This record gives sequence, structure tokens and C-alpha cells, in this order.
Amino acid sequence: MGVEERRQQLIGVALELFSARSPDEVSIDEIAAAAGISRPLVYHYFPGKQSLYEAALRRAAEELATRFVEPREGPLGARLLRVMKRFFDFVDEHGPGFSALMRGGPAVGSTTTNAMIDDVRQAAYEQIMSHLDIAEPPVRLTLVVRSWVSLAEATALLWLDGREIPRAELELQLVHDFAALCAVSAAYDDGMAAVVVRILEQEPLEGPFGELVGRLMAIAPTVMEQVVADDRTA
Amino acid sequence: MGVEERRQQLIGVALELFSARSPDEVSIDEIAAAAGISRPLVYHYFPGKQSLYEAALRRAAEELATRFVEPREGPLGARLLRVMKRFFDFVDEHGPGFSALMRGGPAVGSTTTNAMIDDVRQAAYEQIMSHLDIAEPPVRLTLVVRSWVSLAEATALLWLDGREIPRAELELQLVHDFAALCAVSAAYDDGMAAVVVRILEQEPLEGPFGELVGRLMAIAPTVMEQVVADDRTA
Repeated sequence: MGVEERRQQLIGVALELFSARSPDEVSIDEIAAAAGISRPLVYHYFPGKQSLYEAALRRAAEELATRFVEPREGPLGARLLRVMKRFFDFVDEHGPGFSALMRGGPAVGSTTTNAMIDDVRQAAYEQIMSHLDIAEPPVRLTLVVRSWVSLAEATALLWLDGREIPRAELELQLVHDFAALCAVSAAYDDGMAAVVVRILEQEPLEGPFGELVGRLMAIAPTVMEQVVADDRTA
Repeated sequence: MGVEERRQQLIGVALELFSARSPDEVSIDEIAAAAGISRPLVYHYFPGKQSLYEAALRRAAEELATRFVEPREGPLGARLLRVMKRFFDFVDEHGPGFSALMRGGPAVGSTTTNAMIDDVRQAAYEQIMSHLDIAEPPVRLTLVVRSWVSLAEATALLWLDGREIPRAELELQLVHDFAALCAVSAAYDDGMAAVVVRILEQEPLEGPFGELVGRLMAIAPTVMEQVVADDRTA
């Protein structure tokens, strides 16, 4: 094997091991054994454990970023739902490696890996903004999109810890969360209200956004009655 | 000064410096100068830079956790809003130190500091759960509360980066976001719907939760008309 080919093989082997156990728990010896080469030979291709780990995490980060790419066709809610499915595919496949990357730790919490994580977040942010296609995005939209990216990260990490809730439910929930966070911002800000109307204009009633609005409108009267009734007796 | 007194003074000086610049940019020399002692004397109290930084971050983390404590009196929305004000007070006072702590980096991204951050998140989660006072919280509620804690963190970090949106607006928005994330979960899950009704039972119409529901109900018909009209023409 050539140098680059061997490096790519070792990265692949490392990622395979990180899908079952945290990078902190995987030794160079194990990577060498799984690749069928000697430990010193691993060090020939990567000067240290940290450099192999960083190379593996870089490939994983790049792969994750590619999963955000979605054709700009059809309603936004359906597009976002497809991206969420691919995001959870990735999280599912890379379990412990994804957790370690996002949570930091001895093998990963370096300036280099933090910069990689920021790059992935930035890629997610830019993809969403390109789909929203708003010439001069209000600062509140930037905040909603970026904070929702954090919410998606946190939700995926929490899901990995026990996998108690079906992932399909969380994929849809995150699409709804996006709409809900936009709606909250729109309740107090005209610029955001215009953005929300613009998004919903393209949404069919049976899409994820339309469905959420329908469901909330269906339970809202009961909730409002409850609030009003309570207010009267207070 | 006694040993413990001097240690506390150095921690205080370090936190003061971290409120203006990132821990990575603050040297032990500066901390020594600000405390009016020699550099070797700092090392007498703290064996290395990392141990002083960790002690400072520990004190900050403990202080942040105390700000989550709120009497269990009055409507939940108003309680959460008061906690958000104290949270943003903390973020405001500790700016660069808070950013560095949450974002990781050479001086902070260690196993010890990561564990501190997890402790703060856990304290926030436990406070909220104690206020919600639900005997057997559904797993979806745990997810909503924990992911909202991440959202609050992310929102505060984004706010620090330029402070473009007034913090009072974000404090209220985070309270609303909490309600919105609960509502999304409630739209598909009966257990969460029961939790939401239970929360709203205690809310006055003029409180932050009641106000949000009112505002959203006010804009909802326009949005629904838009969606329905678009669906007809599609």
C-alpha cells in the first residue's frame, strides 16, 4: 500500500472502532491489530495517537458536513426532515465517536478538534441559510438557526444515551422545534414574522410544518380554556 | 494572609481578568501582578497554571449553579424568567471566561473542566425538574429540559458574540422557547400534553407563558390562512 492509502485505511479502522467505543478507550495497539500491521508501523504513518485521532475525526466531521447538503427542491419542512434523517444516520453509525467529539475529553478536546466542531456547526448554519434564501437575514434569524443547531446536537447526544425515544420521532421533533423557535421569535419581531410567513407560504398542509400548526391549533383551544378558566378563579 | 485566604484572593483576581479576556490570553505573570505578589509565590499556592484556572472555573461554576436556585413560589413562567435574568447577569459579568469555559480550549478543555460543565448543566436540569414537581417525569420531558438547557447555553454564547440583541429580549425568549419546545413535544405525546396543561394551569394570562400563547394565537389565523390559501393554489 502507498503512504496515503495506508493512512486512509488506518483512519477507516479507527472510525470503525470509535463507532463502538469512545476514542479514549481505543489504543493504538488495537488499531494496529485491526489493520493487520505492527504498532511501530502505525507511528510511521501518524506521528502520535493524537494525530491519528484528529485525522479520523476530521474525516468524520467532513462526512457529517456532506450529509447536510440537500437539493433546493420542494417544501422546506420536508427538506429539513430529510437532513435530520441523514444526521441521525450519522449519529447512529458513529455513536461513541460522535459523543466523544461533541463532549470533548482527553483525546479530543483540543483546539484542533474544537475548530473542527465549529466548522461542522458553521456548515449546518450555512446550509440552512442557503435554503431559507433570505437576502438580508435579520440578526434574530441567525440566532434562531445557530441555537437550533445546538439544540439538534444536544438532542442527538441525549438520544445516544440510552436511545429511549425512537429516532424517527426526534427527527420530526427537531423539524418542529425549528418552526417553534422561529414562531417564538416571530411573536415579538416583525422581521421574523415576515420570515415565518415566507417559509410557510411554501409549505403544504400535510408537510411537517403544516402538520405541527394543525396539531397545535387543535390542542390550543383546550389549553387556552384552561388558562382563561384558571385566570378567572385566581 | 493565610494559605486559603491567598488562594481565594488569586482565584478572585483570575476571575476578574477572565471577565475581560479569555483565560488562554491571561498569563500567570498578570495574575501575580494584579494580586501584588511575585510569580513564584503564585506557584506556591497553585502548582501550575492549569490548577489555578481550574480552581477559578470551579468557583465560577459553583456561583452559576447558585443562580439557578429560585423559591418555589408563584407562576412557573415568572420563576423561569427571574432565573434567566440571573443567568444573563452571570454571563454578562464573566463574558470571556464563560465563553472559554463553554467552548473549551487549551486552558480549559480538560476532563476536569468538562466534568464541571456537566455539573452545572445537571444543576440546571435538577432545579427545573424540582420546580415542575412531576412525580414520574416522562422521558420526553427529560429530553426537553436537558435540550433546552443546551439551547440557553448556546443562546448566551451567541449573545456574547457582539451583543446585538438586547439581553432582556433573549431572557424572555428563552422562557418562551421552553414553552414552545414543551408544546412541540405535547403535540405528539399525551404524557407531555398532560405536563403542559399542568404547567399552564398555574399561569396567569399576563405572565410570560400566557402572553406567548396570546401572541401566537393572534398571529396564527393569518399564518393558517396563508398556509391554506397556498395549499389551495398548489
